[in-house]
Amino acid sequence: MSALKNDLLLRTLRGEEVERSPVWMMRQAGRYLPEYMVLRRKYGFFERCQTPALACEITVQPVDIVGVDAAILFSDILVVPQAMGLEVQMVESKGPLLPDPIKIDSDLNRIRVPDVNETLGYVFDAIKLIKQELNGRVPLIGFAGAPWTILCYMVQGKGSKTFDEAKAVCYTQPQLAHQLLQMITDTTIAYLKGQVAAGADTIQVFDSWGGLLSPHDFENISLKYIRQIVAALKDDVPVIVFAKGAWHSLKEMADTGAAGLGIDWCIKPELARQFAGDNVTLQGNFDPAKLLSPIPVIQQEVKTMIKAFGTKRYVANLGHGILPNVPVDHARAFVDTVKEFS
Amino acid sequence: MSALKNDLLLRTLRGEEVERSPVWMMRQAGRYLPEYMVLRRKYGFFERCQTPALACEITVQPVDIVGVDAAILFSDILVVPQAMGLEVQMVESKGPLLPDPIKIDSDLNRIRVPDVNETLGYVFDAIKLIKQELNGRVPLIGFAGAPWTILCYMVQGKGSKTFDEAKAVCYTQPQLAHQLLQMITDTTIAYLKGQVAAGADTIQVFDSWGGLLSPHDFENISLKYIRQIVAALKDDVPVIVFAKGAWHSLKEMADTGAAGLGIDWCIKPELARQFAGDNVTLQGNFDPAKLLSPIPVIQQEVKTMIKAFGTKRYVANLGHGILPNVPVDHARAFVDTVKEFS
Repeated sequence: MSALKNDLLLRTLRGEEVERSPVWMMRQAGRYLPEYMVLRRKYGFFERCQTPALACEITVQPVDIVGVDAAILFSDILVVPQAMGLEVQMVESKGPLLPDPIKIDSDLNRIRVPDVNETLGYVFDAIKLIKQELNGRVPLIGFAGAPWTILCYMVQGKGSKTFDEAKAVCYTQPQLAHQLLQMITDTTIAYLKGQVAAGADTIQVFDSWGGLLSPHDFENISLKYIRQIVAALKDDVPVIVFAKGAWHSLKEMADTGAAGLGIDWCIKPELARQFAGDNVTLQGNFDPAKLLSPIPVIQQEVKTMIKAFGTKRYVANLGHGILPNVPVDHARAFVDTVKEFS
Repeated sequence: MSALKNDLLLRTLRGEEVERSPVWMMRQAGRYLPEYMVLRRKYGFFERCQTPALACEITVQPVDIVGVDAAILFSDILVVPQAMGLEVQMVESKGPLLPDPIKIDSDLNRIRVPDVNETLGYVFDAIKLIKQELNGRVPLIGFAGAPWTILCYMVQGKGSKTFDEAKAVCYTQPQLAHQLLQMITDTTIAYLKGQVAAGADTIQVFDSWGGLLSPHDFENISLKYIRQIVAALKDDVPVIVFAKGAWHSLKEMADTGAAGLGIDWCIKPELARQFAGDNVTLQGNFDPAKLLSPIPVIQQEVKTMIKAFGTKRYVANLGHGILPNVPVDHARAFVDTVKEFS
């Protein structure tokens, strides 16, 4: 494997001095890219995830087209419940559907902590292929969902604004919930270790629904398990934790030993830094909808963002995934402005 | 009109000493009550809103059944765009649909700042009837949506997790957005003044989607207009502002002159108090999903909440609307625990 020509992201995560801030965008391999849409029309969602050549092509697209400083594996957080034995369908324009969700104790008999090489080997194959294809141009980010976010889908069975049913299981059947969270955690650790062994240079843990929990419940239901994941991985690669909306626990997340913390756009950069402390890299926090603004507005707002974060221990990114209706030249303007300005 | 026998809520909002904290629940007149479901099966949504006798019956139900310290008008925030001339449908189990949303400048010609007595007189009639029916037992809370939240629906045309189209209009056509926000604000002020004239004892402004905006945009797109509403009303009645998720602007919201601020469960009470300062009443912040817990857990968590807030300048409430699947005796346990413990 050739040495990285652009290791800005990794150096920034390790707290080293850098020439400029690195930039990438969450969900950068996705629907706003016409090149992705061609493949999307031809292949089903999980076919794209499970075919290493397709996952590789999609992962590399934004590096070529938008010029980001890191690639992120094209996959989905729900391959984990799938590997654990739960059926997951991706319903066009509706999102995920898990027809037999976990509701009672005996449902746990239907799932298991799997051998990840058997069930998720296709991801590791994709990573090996991507690393060859990237050929050291930029680092590759691997990822998984946080156990609480995965539980949300495994219990609720589909997307939701509030995931009440998932919360209800945590509140009324805590033993079941914690058993399930531990099974997800064990699977996720093995899965992420496999990603690193295959070549992932850093790992991001996505807790998309962390912000639905009170600070107390976030600690008890989510962070407790994220902490295990970070502890198991952090000596191998820098780990980024992104718990959307969980601004209240930035300090506790920094204390896990994570190298980076993702933040959304609903907190001022200065306050995020104050909460998180100085020993962690912050990543974010451009409002994804702002990429729909005219390009001069995007340029102005990116500059304001960088000034507020400063260039030390900072990774420019969106505060959530890029929207499908963002014009490609707007995404490119975002990336270019970071490169020129920081 | 007879004097109020229970004016705990009003005294707490004015910052006076009280024997115990008042308690009510957002969306307390709603689907978790079997008595409401009987009327829901018989009458359409806007029929229930527009028929004073029905709105009155529904408004008073939770006072009789759960024993809350205040009634809140049964209505919907979307009666305002309706009065402004936009069609609003309520689609069963899908939510609101506005088939001809506002997208370009010329769409403003289709709407107007209406005469509220002509278009929303049915609400004022309902309030008069409710005040008679309550007969001084508890105060009546009137309400309206915040202009940004109303714009979300008027532009997006339906519910959304992110309201990207509404945001895109604010970012790409700011002149149109601010013209629309001002029209909504003018309508809302007249509407709320009408509610107060009809007998509402206090007013709550709901900014359900305030938390989707960055702190900077929240000031510019939302708070600027909420400020106008509070200024126009606060000399007549105490005003409560509830901008869900906008924890970052609690100080700025307190500075509007609002008597009370609603907060959701994603912030610790101590920190909310620190942000908001001492000159405002805080209202919240029980996780609505927690009402699905066993009753002893509810009792314990309510006590923890009250201890954290203290009894001074505090109104016990949920951090968002009560869920339809909450058993009535759980709602009652919430209310009773506040009454006994505080």
